Order: sequence, then structure tokens, then C-alpha cells
Amino acid sequence: MIIKPGELLASINTPEDLRKLKPEQMLQVTQELRQFIIDVVSIHGGHFGASLGVVEITTALHYVFNTPYDQLVWDVGHQAYGHKILTGRRDVFHTNRKYGGISGFPKRKESEYDTFGVGHSSTSISAALGMAVASQYKNEADRQHIAVIGDGALTGGMAFEALNHAGATNANLLVVLNDNCMSIDPNVGALKEYLTDITTSRTYNKVRDEIWNILGKISKFGPNAQHIASKIESGIKASILKQSNLFEGLKFRYFGPIDGHDINHLISVMEDLKHIPGPKILHCITTKGKGFALAEKDQTKWHAPGLFDKITGEIYKTHYDKPQPPKYQDVFGHTIVELAEQNPKIMGVTPAMPSGCSLNIMMKAMPDRAFDVGIAEQHAVTFSAGLATQGMIPFCNIYSTFMQRGYDQVVHDVCLQNLPVVFCLDRAGFAGADGPTHHGAYDIAYMRCIPNMVVSAPMNEQELRNLMFTATQEGAGPFTIRYPRGEGVMPSWKTPFEVIEIGKGRTVQEGEEVAILTFGHIGNYAVDVCKKLSFDGITPGHYDMRFAKPLDEELLHHIFSKYSKVITVEDGCLQGGFGSAVLEFMVDNGYTSQVKRLGMADVIYEHGSQLELHREAGFAPEDIERTVREMIGVAVKV
Amino acid sequence: MIIKPGELLASINTPEDLRKLKPEQMLQVTQELRQFIIDVVSIHGGHFGASLGVVEITTALHYVFNTPYDQLVWDVGHQAYGHKILTGRRDVFHTNRKYGGISGFPKRKESEYDTFGVGHSSTSISAALGMAVASQYKNEADRQHIAVIGDGALTGGMAFEALNHAGATNANLLVVLNDNCMSIDPNVGALKEYLTDITTSRTYNKVRDEIWNILGKISKFGPNAQHIASKIESGIKASILKQSNLFEGLKFRYFGPIDGHDINHLISVMEDLKHIPGPKILHCITTKGKGFALAEKDQTKWHAPGLFDKITGEIYKTHYDKPQPPKYQDVFGHTIVELAEQNPKIMGVTPAMPSGCSLNIMMKAMPDRAFDVGIAEQHAVTFSAGLATQGMIPFCNIYSTFMQRGYDQVVHDVCLQNLPVVFCLDRAGFAGADGPTHHGAYDIAYMRCIPNMVVSAPMNEQELRNLMFTATQEGAGPFTIRYPRGEGVMPSWKTPFEVIEIGKGRTVQEGEEVAILTFGHIGNYAVDVCKKLSFDGITPGHYDMRFAKPLDEELLHHIFSKYSKVITVEDGCLQGGFGSAVLEFMVDNGYTSQVKRLGMADVIYEHGSQLELHREAGFAPEDIERTVREMIGVAVKV
Repeated sequence: MIIKPGELLASINTPEDLRKLKPEQMLQVTQELRQFIIDVVSIHGGHFGASLGVVEITTALHYVFNTPYDQLVWDVGHQAYGHKILTGRRDVFHTNRKYGGISGFPKRKESEYDTFGVGHSSTSISAALGMAVASQYKNEADRQHIAVIGDGALTGGMAFEALNHAGATNANLLVVLNDNCMSIDPNVGALKEYLTDITTSRTYNKVRDEIWNILGKISKFGPNAQHIASKIESGIKASILKQSNLFEGLKFRYFGPIDGHDINHLISVMEDLKHIPGPKILHCITTKGKGFALAEKDQTKWHAPGLFDKITGEIYKTHYDKPQPPKYQDVFGHTIVELAEQNPKIMGVTPAMPSGCSLNIMMKAMPDRAFDVGIAEQHAVTFSAGLATQGMIPFCNIYSTFMQRGYDQVVHDVCLQNLPVVFCLDRAGFAGADGPTHHGAYDIAYMRCIPNMVVSAPMNEQELRNLMFTATQEGAGPFTIRYPRGEGVMPSWKTPFEVIEIGKGRTVQEGEEVAILTFGHIGNYAVDVCKKLSFDGITPGHYDMRFAKPLDEELLHHIFSKYSKVITVEDGCLQGGFGSAVLEFMVDNGYTSQVKRLGMADVIYEHGSQLELHREAGFAPEDIERTVREMIGVAVKV
Repeated sequence: MIIKPGELLASINTPEDLRKLKPEQMLQVTQELRQFIIDVVSIHGGHFGASLGVVEITTALHYVFNTPYDQLVWDVGHQAYGHKILTGRRDVFHTNRKYGGISGFPKRKESEYDTFGVGHSSTSISAALGMAVASQYKNEADRQHIAVIGDGALTGGMAFEALNHAGATNANLLVVLNDNCMSIDPNVGALKEYLTDITTSRTYNKVRDEIWNILGKISKFGPNAQHIASKIESGIKASILKQSNLFEGLKFRYFGPIDGHDINHLISVMEDLKHIPGPKILHCITTKGKGFALAEKDQTKWHAPGLFDKITGEIYKTHYDKPQPPKYQDVFGHTIVELAEQNPKIMGVTPAMPSGCSLNIMMKAMPDRAFDVGIAEQHAVTFSAGLATQGMIPFCNIYSTFMQRGYDQVVHDVCLQNLPVVFCLDRAGFAGADGPTHHGAYDIAYMRCIPNMVVSAPMNEQELRNLMFTATQEGAGPFTIRYPRGEGVMPSWKTPFEVIEIGKGRTVQEGEEVAILTFGHIGNYAVDVCKKLSFDGITPGHYDMRFAKPLDEELLHHIFSKYSKVITVEDGCLQGGFGSAVLEFMVDNGYTSQVKRLGMADVIYEHGSQLELHREAGFAPEDIERTVREMIGVAVKV
């Protein structure tokens, strides 16, 4: 279904076109842009609230700045739909996040306007500062560098590291703080409270406004006037406002807060800021979901709502009446509460993903035992380690791809001290439509090389529950449980808890000639394949290994003694992954079976559905079947 | 040589003993403690300046707080010598950092007073907050939790993440900011400037002092008085100091700055702070190296000076007159300047290790092209990525163990975008005396699983230079060069630059029956072994593979076709490491040679000299020799 853009929007193929319009036309542009986003996302899906919230900021930035020469970096990037639409991707916007379509995030390969690929949070100031310092070195004094970052992303430590560095430079850097009080869930922490304080403090704002007005008026009169403006600013500061602001403490010039939905004011302020050199921050107050009443009201639900009726706001169900297997996320969320009810040592920690990972269930039920620490993976891990030193058993739930950001803390604070922190790695394997920045591809490799760490993956809901239970047993130590985004396979999943012996796999079926060793949910493909092959009288062995570390050595001795051909299947990278661990066992023990490892190759996979990506990577059911047939020399029937 | 402690120090076997002394005796305790540190470190080596700088803070903390019930976390921990001496380790302090001796850092296994193992920076607030939250949950309202953190460590983003979380809690947490303006090198960034500002701003301090005096006096009169004090504080704040302080912006109550060498004042202030609930920060100004004039004067040199004459201050040379091979660090430092002189795209980035990694040479020669970004590995990587988007070729030099802290940025900001950032991983392999927190054990495994990343290691100085040169060639992409701490093997190392074809190994010698495949500097052991074996007529092949990724497949086909026995040797973890990559190749290509992999086992290795640790891990020269002999069935001569 083709979505027709409004009249002005239809004429904007590049920001050059936008800049030809008159300032008084910008209001209409923002209205058409907002409507276009609503029209397309309601039918084709995607992130929603974030992009609606920055329609005015997006339009003002491209109107005022000379993009792409002036360099614009979006933090996280799920708010950049307006940016994509204004920078040549309006007519392909309906392919957003679809296999083969445009990415849901800015991406350097996609457009010269996407100066830096994003997806993870808090990177924009570092990247824009790198660009600004390079411009200085190249004597491009007129070039502007802008990072747009949310108040949620600002809690990520690397944003602070970047502010600390930038504040001590004279780089030409503008940080636009998109303050909407939200991450995906409501933002948390002291910084949020601080931002609320300065937004609501009247006296403070009055003085600010005065300075701003004077500066705004003066600075338009060229370099000399700028010098005067700067003197006035310092003077006022020295007398009243010395170190009065957190950002000024970090040597940024602070402007705001201003209404991030007032397009005219935004344009006028940004015009002025162009003439103010050095690091500066513009604090804009916005509403996530702006312009779509339901999305403004329930911002978490409407972060990425799926498909919906843009008139009534009804979100279309993807599940229907018959009982469905639950999502692994739900199983985690309900199971941790069940476990915590039985065991007072259990606590829950999430870095800003309470609704995504379902820790919100425990946060509601046991607010003193479950913590959203903000977008702060590093802190989440070491905070968990601190809890563990006091006899607690923290479940630290982090998406696999974001676990990379707490990696040192896993090594240094958890594993070196052998502390019982349980890492639940959500979204392990292919993430799907979020694409390469969000695939949980490397965790098996980077976790299994750390001493003391157990690395496990459940094949179904019951195993997830039992692995969580196992991880809470005395002496279990650092424990990783990885599972994918989405549904399991067991509609009736509330099974009683049983301890799984650490390092013990499970025989799904004994077989002949060839053995399939699977790790995690992907093992269900092998079940289907074995069923299909049985009709041809082919019976591979199938083993749900459950642990990539420690390996079930007893089972592996059995397998390598019995089978001359072995297939390993994992939803993760082949370099150093589960299959590689099996090879290490095999060679260390002098076995010489033929082994085929199926998993992610050494390439970057783009976005698409999980099944599409499994096919691309060659470990979908048909690939497993073909591999079995090839190894035993029985061709697929045509 | 036995070092005799002073009279009071001799009587202190635990902080209990310290707390039996009178306040007026504390000055003498600090004097004796300082002298004891000087006496022992001058003869036995170790970190120096940092511990001298916190003698008074250390003494005051153990005097005022009820350790170990009250929990004290040292950030980084190389300043904790005084703490170790006062907490039962005085008489073993001379074994500090030696194989089998006590650790140079706090360590949970070593003492109940070491509440959290440290080594890497910026973890203390997260850990102490975890402890404090656990205490709240356990209703231990009287329990105190103290994190001692330097101004350098405070620039690490996770410290900010922890402040942001802590500030929004009412956890009983005291952060002691040990502000000495230093990391190992002088501290950098806006925060440092800010701290200097508030330290030197007189009006500001006057008001502070007044509040402080009132509070200090009142709060001693019990809970009711505390309530009054708190009201007064808020009152004054509301009128004059609203949001006047960066830490108060983050909802910490801020006290200071005070003189961190005034033991009596420290004791009195800390006594008062015990009665003030919630998160609070005490800002102490100290001098690194305090009490040893030369160390105060040149703080970087005296961070860890080696052995020295405590009277004259002469640092003993470890090198003598005959020409020595240079350290890999020096080769890096001089080579990057040489390369940058020829190629204007080259830049240098270090997170707070300019003297350790020798980027200081470039920072001096080309200040606009080499950057110390502070203790901020995450930012260092993404800042480098930002530079790379502008056509620069940044060399980002990070110790292998600290690279773990920028891991997500390597994946997400560099490799996904295939940007030409060169990672020079210093201190790869066993770090030596710094021990487990500093071993560069996992980098081969965690780097080689990332698409687009080249993983290389030089066997000598010339290869380091040529790999650096190679990494700057068009199309080289993300590039890792890992090398150990310490000396190479070539006294004449300034060889002309030559490009090494990416993924090409080098045949050191062709041989028979068994092939030794080495990765990096450790290959020199194999050279010695081959020479020794040649006297017995044994001729293994020896291949300096140079790349763990991409592997030299042509050379590997040759090796696996020719040799039925293969040994891999690496100064890194065996799980997923270089040897594992070789196994992947072998099995993928249907070879069935017998392979023995030598490297670090799946355990935590403690501290010791590099050779001691190589022996412990079983890849010292004698281990390689024994492995060759065992594989070919020729016993070692007795």
C-alpha cells in the first residue's frame, strides 16, 4: 500500500529542498512529516514514539544546518525516521526494518546523511567529537558537528566520558539534549531528577532567558558582536551563576531548556548557536509520541507498538485465541518472581529494559528487590557483583548485544571473584528486525573464554526455568543463560523446578551414523528435521547440549565414540563459539570424527525476520536436513 | 631483609588495635605508616606515589569506621598498601606482588577487609552501592559503605553511571574523592578543571565551610539534631546554593574540599559524616607521593618507580651498558611518530596511559594529532571511530585487559562500520606482577569473533613496526596488534617499513613430523627450543603465524599436509583462542592431525614474573620442548 506524503513533504527529496522553503512553511512540513510517520508505521510497523517526539528538532536541524557537510549524529537512532524521510528515503520508508529494506537505524552505507551508524545508546557525543576534532585538524573551521542525544542515553557512562573530554577542548560541537524523561521505560536516576529540577526552576530559567535574549540578539551582528555577547554572558555568570549548572561544570555552554516542539523557536535558537564556537548543549523538552494522543499517554507501550489502526489506536493482535507458547521474556519475568518468593537471596537488575525483558513484573511485585539502574550496563554488572558479595543472588538481565558493554565488569568484577551473578542474556542470536547492531551474535565466544563462567542455553521454557533454578543453587557461581527474542514451544510451561546438573546435556534421541549437537532454542529445528528424516528411515542422534561450558564430557565421549559424523548447530558466531568448543574437546581427546559446524559466519548480517536470517546463515531446518543428508550421502528427494 | 615498623605500627595487627589508640596518636601512626611504605617499596618495588598520598585518609577511615563490618571499597587499589598494612598484612607486606606473595591490589580471598577485588578503575561506587542496597534489604541501618575513588577514576563512565543510580537512592554510601589531579599521568578533561575550580573558589568554600561547621556541631547531638541540621542545610541551599555543585546536581550531599593530609580534620569530618544518612561525597585534596619529595615532584615517574635508594632517591637501573632490545612500548611510541611524519592521516589515542604505552612521545611531537582522553576506554574507541569516518587512521592504544571495557564499541562502532581503527593492545598475555586483574588473557578470543577485525601479533620489534605500517594501508580496516609488556629481541630494531600481506604467516624453519605454530612474541621460545632440539637431531617445523585472523590458509594447508603432529603456542586463553582457530581450520578442511594446544588454561592465574607464569601455564620453553618430545616419542635426556 502506497502512502502519499503531504504536498510539501512530497517536494522534499533532500535537505537542500527543505532549505529552499520559507521559515513560515516549516510548521506545515512538521505536520506532514508527523502524519507520514503515523501513516507508514501504523501499516508497516517499527519504532514509533521516539520519532514523533523529534519531528520539530529534526526539521529544524536540517533547515538550519548545512547537512551533510555539517555532521549530524543521532544517538541510538530509532528516533531518526523523520531524518530518513527528509534525506532521500521517503519513498522507500515503507521497507523500513524489512529483509532487504532500509535499516531502522542510521547507517553509513545507506546514506551520506547518516554520518555514524547507531543502535546502541550513548555513542553520539564521542563520535561527533571525533568528527569535530578531525575538522579542526583539517582547518574546516566553519563545519558544524551535532549530536542528538536523549536524557535516557545520557545516563550511559560513555556519554559522560565524552562530555568530560569534549568540555576540555574547543571543538565545534553542539549537543542537542532531547529530554523526554524516557528511555523505552521511564528514565531513572539522579540526572533525570536534576533535569526536571532545572526545567521547573523558575528563577533559574528567568535569568537564563535574559542571557539568552541578549545573546540571541547580539550574536547575529557578526564576530565582533559575538565577542561582546560572550563577555556579557561571562559577566552574568561570574556574579550569579558560577558553576550553577551540571553541564557548565563540565565546561559546556548550556542553553535552554526550550520547548522542543516549537519549530520557530528551535530554528531561531539553532541559527544563533551556529555562531557560538566551542562545546555547547541545547536542552530541549519534548514529549515522546507527540501528536498521537495514545502514544503520548502510554509511552512505553507505544515505543514500538507493532501494527495499529491509526484512527482508533487499536493495536492489532498477533496472537489469537488458541493457546500459544509464551515468549521466553515472559517466562523469565514470571519465573524470577516465583524463585524470589521461595528464596530471599534473589534480586533482579536491569539496565533500562524492564518492559523489554519483563523484569517489570518483579519490580512491581518486589520493589525492594528489583532495580532498573538506567542505561548503564557496566554499572548494572558491578552493582550486581556488589550485591553478590553480601550473599545475594542477583539476576542481571541484559540483552546479549548490550552485554558487550559490561564485558570488562563480567571478567573483572564477577568471574575473577567467582561471584554468583546470573546473567540472563535476552535477544541472544539473531535479533530480527533491529538488525546488525542488535544481533546477539558473539556472546558464546566472549563468555566461554572467561574462567569460572558457566554458559548455558535452554531449548524450551521448562529448561529456562530449570536453568534459572539451577543458577541459584549453592556453588553455582557466575552463570550465563542465553535465550532468543520471542516465543518458545511449550504452551504449558509452568512446570515444577528441577535442578539440572551443571554441564549435563540431554539426549533427545539416540541415532546412527550422524549426531546433531544443538545449543539452545535452535534445537527445536533439529527436532523437526529428525521427525522429517525418520520418514526416510534416517535416524540421526540429537543431543540438546544445554551447556557450552562446561561441556558434558561424558556425553561427548559417548557421541564421538559412537558417531563418525557430527553436526553442531548454534544461533551464534562460529569463530570460537559452541561448535568450536566441541572441536576443542574432540581434538584434545584424540577423536577424528568429521564435524560440520552450523551457525553465523564471519560476516555482518543485516536485518530481517529470525527465520530469514537463519536461512541466510545456513542453519534453518532445511539447512540442517541437507547437512545430514550430505554427510551420510543420501540426497534430498526432489 | 626485614623492615622494622615503627613502635605504634608494630602494635597494630588489625584496625581494632588502631581504634584502641588515642586520636592524638594518629599523627604518629601516619608517620610510621608512611615510612614503612617507603622502606619496603624502595627495596621490594611496587606502586609508590598513590599509597603515600592516602596515608592519612586510610588511617582515618579505619580509625573512624568499624571495618570490616563497615565496608570499604578502594577504587583501582594500587593506593591500598596502607590499608593492607593496617589490616593484618604488615609482616607479609614485603612479599607484595611477588610470585606466591600477597597481591598488589585488594583481593577478597586475601582478607575480609578487602571487601571487593579491584585493579581496573571506576568500579568502587557501583560495588559499594550494591553492598549498601543489600544492607538496606537486610535492615542493617547502621552499616556504613565507603568507596574511595580518585579524580582520575571518576572520569571513567561507569563511576558516573553509579553516581546517577546512587543519587536516586537513600543508600548509606560515602564516596571519598581522593583528588590529586593525577591518573598515572596528569589527569585530563573538564571534570578535572571543575574540581580545580571548586577547590580554588573562595566564596564558594566559605559558604560551604559555614554550613559544614553548623552541621558538624549539631549532628553530634543525635537524631533530632540531625534533623535540624538537615533543615538548616536545605534552607541555605535553597537560597544560595541551589544546584550549585555538580555532585549535588546528582543528588549527592557534597562536603569539602578539605585537606586530605590533615589527619585530625579528616577524623573529625568522618565522625560527623557517620551520622548523615544517604549518599554523600567527601572531597579530599591530596598530593600523590606525599612525604617523599622526589615523588611529589615527578608523580608519573614515581607512580611505580621500581627499586630505589630511599635516601638519595636514585632509581636503580635494570639495564646496563651493553645494548639491550627495546621494550615493545618504546618501539610503538617511536614508530607511530615515524609513521605519522610520513602519513598525515595517522592519529594517536590513549585512555590515560600516555607514559605506560609511550604515546607521550607523539603527544609531545604532534600535540594536535595525539590525545589522552582520560580513563575512558569506551569513549576512546568511539572517538577513534569518529576520527576514522573523516579519513583519519587512528591508533587507539589500550592495554589488552582494559580493551575489555571498550568491547561493545569495538563491535558496534568500529567493526560493524568497517572503520580503519588500529587497536594496539599493550600488555597482552601475562601482565606479570600486576596479576589477574591485569593479565591480557582473553583478547584473541574476544577479538577474533568479530567480523571485519584483523587480529595480529608480532614476534619481534621489526614485525611490530611492519604490522603498524601494514595497518595504515588502504583497505586494512579494523586491525588489532597485540604485544606483551616488556622487551623484544632486537637491539637494532629501526628497520625500514615493509608491508606484510594481511593473513600471511612466516616460516621460521621447515622441519619434520611435528610443526610448532606460534602467535606473537612467545614464538621466540620456540626458536630457542628448536635450536636446543637440533643438537639431538630433532627438527620441528616452526611457523610464526602473525595472524590469528585471517589465518594463513595456504600455509596451514602446507602444514597439515606435511605434519601429522602440530603444536600451537599462544600467550592467551585456550578457549576460543589462536589454537582454537587452527582447530577450526583443520576440521573444516578435513585434516586429522594430532594437535596439542599450549596456552592459558581455563583458570585464574595469580601474579608473578612473566616467565614464572608461563611455567605455571605450561608454555615456557621447557614445556614446548617436552611437548615436542612427547609427541614424537623421544624422551628428554636426563
